[in-house]
Amino acid sequence: MRIHIQNPHGEKLFPVTEAQVAAALARHPEIGQPDISFADDDAGFDAAIGQAEALLTWTRVVKARFPVGALPGIAPKLKVIACTSAGLDGLAPFGWLPPEVTLLNNRGAHAAKAGEFALMSLLMLASHIPFFGTQQREESWTKRFGSVLAGRTVCIVGLGSIGGTAAKHAKAFGMKVIGVRNSATPHPECHEVVTTAALDQVLPRAEFLLLACPLTPETRGLVDRRRIGLLPAGAKVVNMARGAVWDQDAVCDALEAGALAGVVTDVAVPEPLPPGHRMWRTPGMLVVPHVSSDDPATYNEDTLDILFTNLLAMRAGQPAPNRVDPARGY
Amino acid sequence: MRIHIQNPHGEKLFPVTEAQVAAALARHPEIGQPDISFADDDAGFDAAIGQAEALLTWTRVVKARFPVGALPGIAPKLKVIACTSAGLDGLAPFGWLPPEVTLLNNRGAHAAKAGEFALMSLLMLASHIPFFGTQQREESWTKRFGSVLAGRTVCIVGLGSIGGTAAKHAKAFGMKVIGVRNSATPHPECHEVVTTAALDQVLPRAEFLLLACPLTPETRGLVDRRRIGLLPAGAKVVNMARGAVWDQDAVCDALEAGALAGVVTDVAVPEPLPPGHRMWRTPGMLVVPHVSSDDPATYNEDTLDILFTNLLAMRAGQPAPNRVDPARGY
Repeated sequence: MRIHIQNPHGEKLFPVTEAQVAAALARHPEIGQPDISFADDDAGFDAAIGQAEALLTWTRVVKARFPVGALPGIAPKLKVIACTSAGLDGLAPFGWLPPEVTLLNNRGAHAAKAGEFALMSLLMLASHIPFFGTQQREESWTKRFGSVLAGRTVCIVGLGSIGGTAAKHAKAFGMKVIGVRNSATPHPECHEVVTTAALDQVLPRAEFLLLACPLTPETRGLVDRRRIGLLPAGAKVVNMARGAVWDQDAVCDALEAGALAGVVTDVAVPEPLPPGHRMWRTPGMLVVPHVSSDDPATYNEDTLDILFTNLLAMRAGQPAPNRVDPARGY
Repeated sequence: MRIHIQNPHGEKLFPVTEAQVAAALARHPEIGQPDISFADDDAGFDAAIGQAEALLTWTRVVKARFPVGALPGIAPKLKVIACTSAGLDGLAPFGWLPPEVTLLNNRGAHAAKAGEFALMSLLMLASHIPFFGTQQREESWTKRFGSVLAGRTVCIVGLGSIGGTAAKHAKAFGMKVIGVRNSATPHPECHEVVTTAALDQVLPRAEFLLLACPLTPETRGLVDRRRIGLLPAGAKVVNMARGAVWDQDAVCDALEAGALAGVVTDVAVPEPLPPGHRMWRTPGMLVVPHVSSDDPATYNEDTLDILFTNLLAMRAGQPAPNRVDPARGY
């Protein structure tokens, strides 16, 4: 099997290295001895892609290289595209993807780091850290006492790898966990699961609301101004999904009005958030520059394990665990 | 037995109420039916203290009411003073305390909240949150990727109720935990325990340093400029002890020089920290206004449980678990 790994040009932190691949192959001896090429420039991509059966790369490379209709001509042997991101909303709509090519996301590579970030965000909001960040800008020592997590209710929208790990941590700290996802199937780390259609019914109980869903046509604008109004007074919100999942201005308004007590967000519209944007200055808003879920020390190891696990499943005729369904977008 | 509870005048968040005492008595029926008085003003204190055998109050009340030599005349029947704080450094030196009066601190009331604050601080430092706080002041979206806690080394100075709970959480997240305390006695949540005299030997391994010791003559200035220099490059520091335990200016200098990567402090010198103080503006420094360890929802409940547990121990002729030794200051 021929696998091409295309690192973004100039990437310093997350390039997949030959040593990492060798180590991953040693962890998965069943995969055999695939022919693996590496590149981080256009010439390397062009030289390899015509023969590649699998491509591991970043979404922005896929987006740049495969406009609608281009793939079969450029990469006639390609069967698998594995992206290093969990959320592939940047590649939608998926008209560029021939049905015989399997698109894989990187669901799972983020679980440990993102789960810790989620727990950290809940703890920070319980201790009013975003408020104290605002106070620090004003050089004001103003006490506000916080609470332990035990007994508090968190509503987690999206129970994938990130939301599920967040639920596990929240439950371990004694929170009551309400999960929200497409189906109301029970989840082992949630006390209660409802469908997205029932979101309005659980929001009034959500002392904490954590967004960890993919951005799809269904979730775009999901947490709109009306739904923010359904949250209890002094609710706290974490966004680890995408900025387009909530109404960003409505969130800022609610913080300024004191209806929300604090927000931690790892995402924004636009990214990078420009200087002068109101988000930077909204009281009780902590802005993190989209780094919640990626630990350079473990990311590529996990990425390669996921790739090889999926290739082995496909070879065995089983469904690829990370296959993205273009119809639903994740 | 006569117990007087003196709340600070005008205290809104943490006054001990009759309902809380009734509930605590119901949890400790062995205590019997003590005669309990409440006051929040001078007249109430003066009326009750002459007959009181036990006094539950705040350190600032003790400090104001019992100058050296005054106690026997004012409170001739007093056997126990229970303070609502864990750290009684504000009452040192203890020449005002007759040897026949037992002084109790509130060790244990802070464990749950403070333990969560400690874990939160470690997670925040691993995810560069204090750095992002500085970036937010500058309205700059600058990515810096963080790591999971697993495999990192934390050195915790002080293994009392707060430090011990911090160690438990750190260990649960896979950190290597080095404890530092007066004796090198093993601690169940630490992989290694050394005495304070051996601090210099472990600091070079302390990727994270968490201060949770009482302020005593021995710990005042413990983390001085020289010792800060022993920390590894990019070390991260949490101070939940007292501002006087470290050299605050040396910490700020180390952050400005990039020798330290981030600091979360719940304490400062002076408190309240005045506007214009360099701490507010030091890059990578997050200032929290001394609220890490007190959860209004559970604090008095825990405080009363600690008081009654100590009174029962003393009645049984056993050592009071929360007795402060004036010679060592905690």
